[in-house]
This record gives sequence, C-alpha cells and structure tokens, in this order.
Amino acid sequence: MKRIAIDMDEVIADANLRFMDWYERDFGRRITLQEIHGKFFREVVSPEHREHTIKYLHTEGFFKDMAVIKDSQEVVYELSKKYEIFITTAAMEFPTSFIHKYEWLKQHFPFIPWTHMVFCGDKSIIHADYLIDDHSRHFKRFSGQGILFTSPHNVHEDWNPRVNSWKDVADLLL
Amino acid sequence: MKRIAIDMDEVIADANLRFMDWYERDFGRRITLQEIHGKFFREVVSPEHREHTIKYLHTEGFFKDMAVIKDSQEVVYELSKKYEIFITTAAMEFPTSFIHKYEWLKQHFPFIPWTHMVFCGDKSIIHADYLIDDHSRHFKRFSGQGILFTSPHNVHEDWNPRVNSWKDVADLLL
Repeated sequence: MKRIAIDMDEVIADANLRFMDWYERDFGRRITLQEIHGKFFREVVSPEHREHTIKYLHTEGFFKDMAVIKDSQEVVYELSKKYEIFITTAAMEFPTSFIHKYEWLKQHFPFIPWTHMVFCGDKSIIHADYLIDDHSRHFKRFSGQGILFTSPHNVHEDWNPRVNSWKDVADLLL
Repeated sequence: MKRIAIDMDEVIADANLRFMDWYERDFGRRITLQEIHGKFFREVVSPEHREHTIKYLHTEGFFKDMAVIKDSQEVVYELSKKYEIFITTAAMEFPTSFIHKYEWLKQHFPFIPWTHMVFCGDKSIIHADYLIDDHSRHFKRFSGQGILFTSPHNVHEDWNPRVNSWKDVADLLL
C-alpha cells in the first residue's frame, strides 16, 4: 500500500484565516485573500505591525480550533481506504502548537490514529511515496514525490504536480 | 552523509529510573534493576499497583527532567560530526510528554536543532540509514538498519546488531 504524507497548515488547517482574524482583532483592518495573493501574510501587513504579526505563530492559541480546509476531511478519508496516510507537520518550530495540533487532529481527523501523526522540522526524514505540502522547500530532499498544495504564498512557484484544492487531490490520487 | 535516527526513552533518557522513583514515592518500595531484568517495569510491580503504575506514562511531569543515559551526550555529539542525527521518539502516545521532551532535548542535546527532532508513533515513517531504539518492533517496517539498544525489557530478545551502552555505539559507528 502506497503512503501519503500530508502537511497541516494551509493544507488541511486554515492558518491564513487565523492570521486574518487576529490581525483584524488587533489592528481593525481585514486583510483579504486578494492582498496576500503571491505573498506571505507578514509581507502585506503595515511594516510597523510586522513583528507583532510574526509573533502570532509563537503565541498560545494560534493553532487552536483552526478552520478545516474545504473538502480535506472527506478526501483524506477516501484516500485512507487506498493509501496509508500520515499527517506530517513542521510543528517543532512552534512548541506552543503541539497540544493544539494534536487535539485538532483528534477532533477533525478521528480516523487518523496517533501512530500516524508526526511532528517534525526537516521533512526529508519522512519516508513516504507522496508529500502534499504548501512549501516546496520540503520537497528538495524528500525521497518521494512532492505535490504542491496551492496557498497564496506559492501561487507563482513553478512546481509539478500542483493541486489547487482537495478535489484536485482526489482527481490525482483516487 | 549517512543519517542516524535515535530514540529517547531508555536510549538517551532514563525512563526506568523515573518509574523506580515514582513507584518508591507512592508505595515505599524500591524496585531494583535486577528485578526488571528481562521484563517491563509494569510486570514486576504488585498486581494491585499495576494500573496505577501504567498511568504514570500519561501523568503530567513523568517525562520532565529525566536523567540522561550515561555517555549519550558525548557520543551523540561525536556522531553528529560524521552523521546527520535525528531524535525520533514515539511521543504521540503521550501528549503530556510533548513539551517536556522538547525542553529536555533543548537542555541536554543543545546541538540538535528543532529541525531534527521528530515526535511520531509508527517509526516506519522515518527515513534514515540507522535507527537506535530499545524496541525492536520499530525495526520491522523500518527501511534502514535497526540497532537494538539494550534495556532491561529486551535483554532476552534476539537482534543483531545490539549495543549495551553508548560506548558500544561509538565502537560500532565511529
């Protein structure tokens, strides 16, 4: 049975929405998806807010109760019948995220057992046939096939295969 | 550069000593290393204490400030000059361990960056040339060479190569 490793943030968990919500809460302005097209969130905020915004990632609660990316639950569940699924997230950079990411996976992807959750940093340690991720840098030393999941920050990157949605993932792998 | 994945509990962190300390604290008797030879800790405690003892693993603080296994820091440091080192621990079974394991690694193995720490469950996800672990079950689907690190519970297991100490690891890999 082939194995698929799947990233969390911007692939199954909507981190950008959390950035938008917290930024609006703190500075009273809603950053739009159009604004962050082709960029990271931190690149479009006012320069005097940048440092504050980057700190969100290290703030208790940032990774708690994130919204689920559209169709990810249904498609990952269908994939799990044909492939071995691991969730592989670079959580090690953000220690405040550990327990929230774990609880989130248990709640929203209850069919993924704890044996198949991985918190890591450098994803070249992952032994899988496919890695679905929004950061192509993880593909460079990855031994399998990287599949780039479209996120505002990577729209101008040249990578094949690319998927724009979980429906695309279903078309590619199911 | 070849890559070595290294387990934590009973390989670099002394989990048995923690069991002994907590059991003595709770029941007034010191279990000895002789008693657990060839067994898991839970197998040698009084039957009426077994359930309580197993719960230690899920108790806040069990994984905090564990003693470091003899010579592990020095040898892993020397290994890190010749090999790429990842610490790969099946932490996912014990969510209360996450932050304590992370802090412990930062304190006792400061030369291992967060990019090279992995919390996982099924270690077949690990892509490495060697895995040093006290549980041979992790070697079954591991794609590299498993190296069994001697711990009381595995002394009667038949596995080659086996190492009895970090000096043995140095002899084998340096």
